[in-house]
Amino acid sequence: MSMDHLSTTFAALADPTRRAILARLASGAASVTELAEPFKMSLPAISKHLKVLEHAGLIARGREAQWRPCQLEAGPLKEAANWLEHYRRFWEQSFDHLEKYLRELQEKEKKHGRKK
Amino acid sequence: MSMDHLSTTFAALADPTRRAILARLASGAASVTELAEPFKMSLPAISKHLKVLEHAGLIARGREAQWRPCQLEAGPLKEAANWLEHYRRFWEQSFDHLEKYLRELQEKEKKHGRKK
Repeated sequence: MSMDHLSTTFAALADPTRRAILARLASGAASVTELAEPFKMSLPAISKHLKVLEHAGLIARGREAQWRPCQLEAGPLKEAANWLEHYRRFWEQSFDHLEKYLRELQEKEKKHGRKK
Repeated sequence: MSMDHLSTTFAALADPTRRAILARLASGAASVTELAEPFKMSLPAISKHLKVLEHAGLIARGREAQWRPCQLEAGPLKEAANWLEHYRRFWEQSFDHLEKYLRELQEKEKKHGRKK
């Protein structure tokens, strides 16, 4: 199945292990062995996740045969963030509604307080 | 397979039709028939996508038996944007590098210009 860029990015991010790998790489490049350490996973299992991330352009791997360090590539993350940005007004709106509701509650409580 | 929230959100977003449905709902609630119109898809195919979006909490559906309008729910999008936000410094950094490089190029061109 050929997928568009954004779909490939989101699919790659839809896994907690792959997100944890990216979080680890945010603090610097690492070898496959180093990446596998914190997970109770076999090297082949980790390699599979790395392939998905690499295919999505979320990581790049060094060329050295012995030690092929992985490093984070943020381009696709930026693209994903840009897509989500279009919806910001919706979650900020819901926050505005909540804030308005809380303000109204406080007003009511004040009035109630005055009557005592 | 039970998935964490964020994985469910990203998996739901990893499809161009589902993203197009969300984009349509950004301009207001719509029935399944209305949502199906722009896509050359059968109603059952669209319903399948809507189920994925509903399961991810990205849309909510009205209770009316006849007309069950779908509407956008932005909560999970906010959560996804918050996750991506942690990586902002990486794509801004790459932009900074590019900017620095372009500035250096300009400097070189200026010097070159002076020599003429």
